Amino acid sequence: MSDKVAVFRREHFNAAHRLHNPDWDEATNDKVFGKCNNPHFHGHNYELEVKVVGVPDPKTGYVMDLKLLSDLIQDHVLEKFDHKNLNLDTEEFKNLNPTAENIVVVIYKILRPLIDKKYDLQVRLYETPRNFVEYPV
Amino acid sequence: MSDKVAVFRREHFNAAHRLHNPDWDEATNDKVFGKCNNPHFHGHNYELEVKVVGVPDPKTGYVMDLKLLSDLIQDHVLEKFDHKNLNLDTEEFKNLNPTAENIVVVIYKILRPLIDKKYDLQVRLYETPRNFVEYPV
Amino acid sequence: MSDKVAVFRREHFNAAHRLHNPDWDEATNDKVFGKCNNPHFHGHNYELEVKVVGVPDPKTGYVMDLKLLSDLIQDHVLEKFDHKNLNLDTEEFKNLNPTAENIVVVIYKILRPLIDKKYDLQVRLYETPRNFVEYPV
Amino acid sequence: MSDKVAVFRREHFNAAHRLHNPDWDEATNDKVFGKCNNPHFHGHNYELEVKVVGVPDPKTGYVMDLKLLSDLIQDHVLEKFDHKNLNLDTEEFKNLNPTAENIVVVIYKILRPLIDKKYDLQVRLYETPRNFVEYPV
Amino acid sequence: MSDKVAVFRREHFNAAHRLHNPDWDEATNDKVFGKCNNPHFHGHNYELEVKVVGVPDPKTGYVMDLKLLSDLIQDHVLEKFDHKNLNLDTEEFKNLNPTAENIVVVIYKILRPLIDKKYDLQVRLYETPRNFVEYPV
Amino acid sequence: MSDKVAVFRREHFNAAHRLHNPDWDEATNDKVFGKCNNPHFHGHNYELEVKVVGVPDPKTGYVMDLKLLSDLIQDHVLEKFDHKNLNLDTEEFKNLNPTAENIVVVIYKILRPLIDKKYDLQVRLYETPRNFVEYPV
Repeated sequence: MSDKVAVFRREHFNAAHRLHNPDWDEATNDKVFGKCNNPHFHGHNYELEVKVVGVPDPKTGYVMDLKLLSDLIQDHVLEKFDHKNLNLDTEEFKNLNPTAENIVVVIYKILRPLIDKKYDLQVRLYETPRNFVEYPV
Repeated sequence: MSDKVAVFRREHFNAAHRLHNPDWDEATNDKVFGKCNNPHFHGHNYELEVKVVGVPDPKTGYVMDLKLLSDLIQDHVLEKFDHKNLNLDTEEFKNLNPTAENIVVVIYKILRPLIDKKYDLQVRLYETPRNFVEYPV
Repeated sequence: MSDKVAVFRREHFNAAHRLHNPDWDEATNDKVFGKCNNPHFHGHNYELEVKVVGVPDPKTGYVMDLKLLSDLIQDHVLEKFDHKNLNLDTEEFKNLNPTAENIVVVIYKILRPLIDKKYDLQVRLYETPRNFVEYPV
Repeated sequence: MSDKVAVFRREHFNAAHRLHNPDWDEATNDKVFGKCNNPHFHGHNYELEVKVVGVPDPKTGYVMDLKLLSDLIQDHVLEKFDHKNLNLDTEEFKNLNPTAENIVVVIYKILRPLIDKKYDLQVRLYETPRNFVEYPV
Repeated sequence: MSDKVAVFRREHFNAAHRLHNPDWDEATNDKVFGKCNNPHFHGHNYELEVKVVGVPDPKTGYVMDLKLLSDLIQDHVLEKFDHKNLNLDTEEFKNLNPTAENIVVVIYKILRPLIDKKYDLQVRLYETPRNFVEYPV
Repeated sequence: MSDKVAVFRREHFNAAHRLHNPDWDEATNDKVFGKCNNPHFHGHNYELEVKVVGVPDPKTGYVMDLKLLSDLIQDHVLEKFDHKNLNLDTEEFKNLNPTAENIVVVIYKILRPLIDKKYDLQVRLYETPRNFVEYPV
């Protein structure tokens, strides 16, 4: 059996968004995205869980200091997205529909280069307590 | 001791909002409301708890059928606010800053005439799991 | 200001029940209680919160030892109701409709004589995370 | 790395059940199932999490519209089991002991033919906040 | 009806403590406090809810900026108690048994002079999700 | 597809601990472990989730009786760690830094020989609601 342990850090941010495909007419957008297509946006309290998998360092007993992981999420994810309009205020979603699926992949791609390659990384995002997503699988 | 029992129903809705006082310049708005003043809005998953106090009907054992209370909240509160931009999409907050305090009072005023005067009514609103408000006190 | 402090203990139990008024015909029962009138019963994980208010004893710093309160709830409430059919297995609901309102009053009446009169007592009962009741008010 | 994303939808239902093996005498049933063998049934608030894994559609940004997944769970699972007695009111558990393990496999088998084969499917079922099951593994 | 609204802010801290009365012998301490009397301490994740009641300012829509309330709790309560041994590291509990009741009163007395007298103040403290206290009542 | 089902049981315990490497000087310990290095200890409400994977027994419908799993966790894990100082009161952490990673591996190693080899076993440990670990991966 591997010595690897998974460590998780949970953070949250609030944001507005609108689901919309600019290649479609309004009727199609309305049919596909329903209330989520509101042109004036709606919003969520997103809960973010970041999972890092590795072998604990025998000197510290840590896979990775969760305080450092928390700071890294704060500086690179929450700074970008917290209290923002995802469609209007962020480069990432200017041309990408901010569904939970797309947001979780974007967050993974932000974090992956910041975390040592020896660690596996997975991200879970709760859009509401009843709707959530995970990447990669 | 009174025979009164309190019954509670919890519902939720998602909305975008922006905190802003149009009588102030941007510097003052920014100082007072910080990130919540983002002109492009941000958003929340609001959790709403409605408390109705009365004497249970001996025939039903109900103070009030919570299914009816849920329908009433659905029709008169969630229809108005769910997946909406509170500042732009609602009459109530066209000229009223959509702070949690103002939202909870507005919801109370919507519900009060719809619920028999023999019942006491109180509303609690969670803007996030860590920030919430209650009216009246 | 009073020196009183409120202490709370949360417990849970599982039970089956059916909402029904034997004085009514089936059509009326069905109209009033809907799915809750299923003659074969349905069930819930009830969460119970018991609040005791008093002045902390300066020798212990306790209003009341919550371990004792927990034991008392265990022996007098959970023993009666946990993993039971409220309508068929309990004296209390043989002739009383087991709505959340009636259950919370019954639990209060069980506990009140067991707790020193110098303490105030209040009971909250969650039938589901979205439907709950409180007595007295 | 695969482009697959997992999406989850959480729903709930209330039901009564009894654990019982008709091939055994009462003493054996009582020894094995304890309080869960109560002949008059007990009940739970079941929480259900359905996980669907696939590649997001580039046109929508959705793996699968969670509103559609929610409707599908509503129509095919909750309609059958919500506010029901699993042992008496359902075909599925007439001759199958309604343990959490058996319920989760039954729900998986109901949902699997309703969801496109290109998606992976997994179901988690909470019988209480402290007891839960998952299938397949 | 009063225009007052209650606003709540939730924070958390981790601490070690031991329940002990130095005027008693070990047998009495053990009998009264059980496992909580462990001379080497045990610990909790405390969740703190601070409730402030007042009239919303018509200019801001705030009773009190919850960011300011959060900072105030951070600077005056969490700085003192977070990641501390309540018995050994704090002036407040050098000679006061750190029961939940005594902790909640101490926190109230720290916060009361820091919050404008025009506001009512109440503090709730969760020692565990199943044991909690509130002051004043 | 395998017939295996995962069953989970959640338990909790409270404990004090201190993160410290005796081979390092205080400055290094302070730099690495920060507030967690407090020589007088701090503490947590640990939540423990134990996952057992196997094929349900057709006679019972159980993978494993969760009451038995709960008793086993109670007798072999909670008895050791609940209301204890992990550094001072336990053999396991006399010479092992009680990080969440090390605790979860220790708990796994305690439980593994107690559970039939035909079952897979995994343990998740919440140190706080925002920091948690899992082993094995």
